[in-house]
Amino acid sequence: MIYFDNSATTKPYLEVLATFRQVSERYYGNPSSIHRIGCDSERLLTQAKKQAAQLLNVEESEIIFTSGGTEGNNLAVKGIALQHQQRGKHIITTSIEHPSVKEACKSLESLGFNVTYLPVDQNGQVNVQDIADAITEDTILISVMHVNNELGTIQPIEEIGEIANKYPKLFFHVDYVQGLGKVPLDFNKAHIDLCTMSGHKIHGLNGTGMLYIKKGTSIFPLLHGGSQELSYRAGTENLAGSVSMVKALRIILDKQRTHHHHLQHLNGQLRSELRQIEGVYINSPEDAAPHILNISLPGFKPEVVIHALGERDIFVSTKSACSSKNAGESSVLEACNIGFKRSLSAIRISLSHHNTEEEVDTFVNVLKEVMNQLSEVMG
Amino acid sequence: MIYFDNSATTKPYLEVLATFRQVSERYYGNPSSIHRIGCDSERLLTQAKKQAAQLLNVEESEIIFTSGGTEGNNLAVKGIALQHQQRGKHIITTSIEHPSVKEACKSLESLGFNVTYLPVDQNGQVNVQDIADAITEDTILISVMHVNNELGTIQPIEEIGEIANKYPKLFFHVDYVQGLGKVPLDFNKAHIDLCTMSGHKIHGLNGTGMLYIKKGTSIFPLLHGGSQELSYRAGTENLAGSVSMVKALRIILDKQRTHHHHLQHLNGQLRSELRQIEGVYINSPEDAAPHILNISLPGFKPEVVIHALGERDIFVSTKSACSSKNAGESSVLEACNIGFKRSLSAIRISLSHHNTEEEVDTFVNVLKEVMNQLSEVMG
Repeated sequence: MIYFDNSATTKPYLEVLATFRQVSERYYGNPSSIHRIGCDSERLLTQAKKQAAQLLNVEESEIIFTSGGTEGNNLAVKGIALQHQQRGKHIITTSIEHPSVKEACKSLESLGFNVTYLPVDQNGQVNVQDIADAITEDTILISVMHVNNELGTIQPIEEIGEIANKYPKLFFHVDYVQGLGKVPLDFNKAHIDLCTMSGHKIHGLNGTGMLYIKKGTSIFPLLHGGSQELSYRAGTENLAGSVSMVKALRIILDKQRTHHHHLQHLNGQLRSELRQIEGVYINSPEDAAPHILNISLPGFKPEVVIHALGERDIFVSTKSACSSKNAGESSVLEACNIGFKRSLSAIRISLSHHNTEEEVDTFVNVLKEVMNQLSEVMG
Repeated sequence: MIYFDNSATTKPYLEVLATFRQVSERYYGNPSSIHRIGCDSERLLTQAKKQAAQLLNVEESEIIFTSGGTEGNNLAVKGIALQHQQRGKHIITTSIEHPSVKEACKSLESLGFNVTYLPVDQNGQVNVQDIADAITEDTILISVMHVNNELGTIQPIEEIGEIANKYPKLFFHVDYVQGLGKVPLDFNKAHIDLCTMSGHKIHGLNGTGMLYIKKGTSIFPLLHGGSQELSYRAGTENLAGSVSMVKALRIILDKQRTHHHHLQHLNGQLRSELRQIEGVYINSPEDAAPHILNISLPGFKPEVVIHALGERDIFVSTKSACSSKNAGESSVLEACNIGFKRSLSAIRISLSHHNTEEEVDTFVNVLKEVMNQLSEVMG
């Protein structure tokens, strides 16, 4: 089996699963309970948070555990909007954000907020000057993703942060879900106020995630209740999930450099082999994140190609898993203006450091076969 | 060790942990992915939901998986309020709800909603007539918990549902977190529109839960994004967590009658033995849920008693874990008007079906010792 759909979700590390089990069995106390069993759980939670903060070079009080990327993005976007609406009701984002940012913004429009969705170029990149130009007196939030989930395009986060930083009443949120563990990002250097991370994209578990909230940033919680997570996110902590998320984070960051090198190598191999197939267009820019390669096969229905590859035990995807069940062209590629034929026939190959050269070779060969067979059927 | 803090959280069943691990390892595909690995995950998710629906005697489309009780309560309360605010902005609840309902209501007050917090009697019971009287043209939601988390008091949910049902534009939400698996509740018979359940209170895992949303009930999602969970709750599904929650649900409901009998027996034993100790007051009403017994030891600081019991490996709590770190009297007992001395010295004993007669005996004997020792120190 060749699994090339790692941007949809990754297979959890066995160490992560082992950690989850150990914590669930041994530390079942509620961290809010004041007896010893509760205190043991609380101590472990604090340790996990401390380790996460060290790994990300931020402060312990700036990390909260969430149930995943979608919660993190919603909490950041809505949390800032609802909390600071008296300052202004304008939000700036791009037209190629993940559905959890885009739909959160749309939901805020229904509550009276005004959202600017900036265009991107053919590479899926937003223009920094466009962001600067879009800022008004009412702007309270800029939300831009780091690595695009369909194209792998890396946005100029540091430059955008530079601009955001000039406006003291403006918050800067970054969706770092696809970049974490693959493309380094310095939260402080990029003047980021809120940064979303997800567990299951880094071989952690579904239902786990983290949100970085810069010290001094107040947000309106989505989940009110107990005073867990500094009252930013109420609810009994998913201790085993959180500890396992930090475990995955440690593993992935420890080997980030080696993985990056390996992924870049596979990406180069993929590109050079795919370029030799007639009718294959590469949509991802040359300088994209190495684990995502988006290609188009004009004339082929991506669902049919995916099915044919699946029969040969190779798994890739069309677009974002979170929008894969909506028929039609990818809204990300549509925004890139690369033409209907290409945006309607796109396939995303997304790699993990577990993938190999042999898998890339096999994939390319099978893709050729599949294209030939389908051409004959269609012809 | 004697663990009598099962209303804070329960120890997960080993079967639940095994299920979690198996699903995480074998079904790591994203249920939204259109390839076989994704479809396998989606099929399992659908099966789990179907099983949950059958166990609860509702329809499959009426169940969504959440990250826990706090999320379920917030989604129900805020989801109805934000979605139906043009109909009216009045909410009715009680003064002894769990923090996740109470604080969600308070947050809505900050957004312009009007909330009535009805009083309760000395048993912690709300008056049904009070609810009927509080309904105005602006009322869109009644939220009342089933079993109170500190006292075990069971609210007259069916009678309240009867009233709510007379007003077609009014929704009825029930926090069923403490009752699930211990005190049966027929969602249909009680005319419930939304009902919150949590995994970690029924020997499932932290970070898992379910919300029942009656067919035809529209809510404003807290998490926007992909179209998961019928668009009520976006985000890649925590498949392993959800399947494990349903596993716990099946086990707990299969044995509900036996457990109830056992818990009632232990509860009776506790009451009769505690009544023989001078200075111990029983706060829970006679007809409370059998797994929760709230007592007061006027003159003793509950934190000190809990610490002393903890040194002897016995674990109980003061109040709700979600509010245990706020000093002072329990707001639930305060609302019951049983007097400051009693509400300041309350201890909650919460049982699981795993507890035994011997544990009850040991607990009562140790409690006597502890009270004697502390009296000497204080005297």
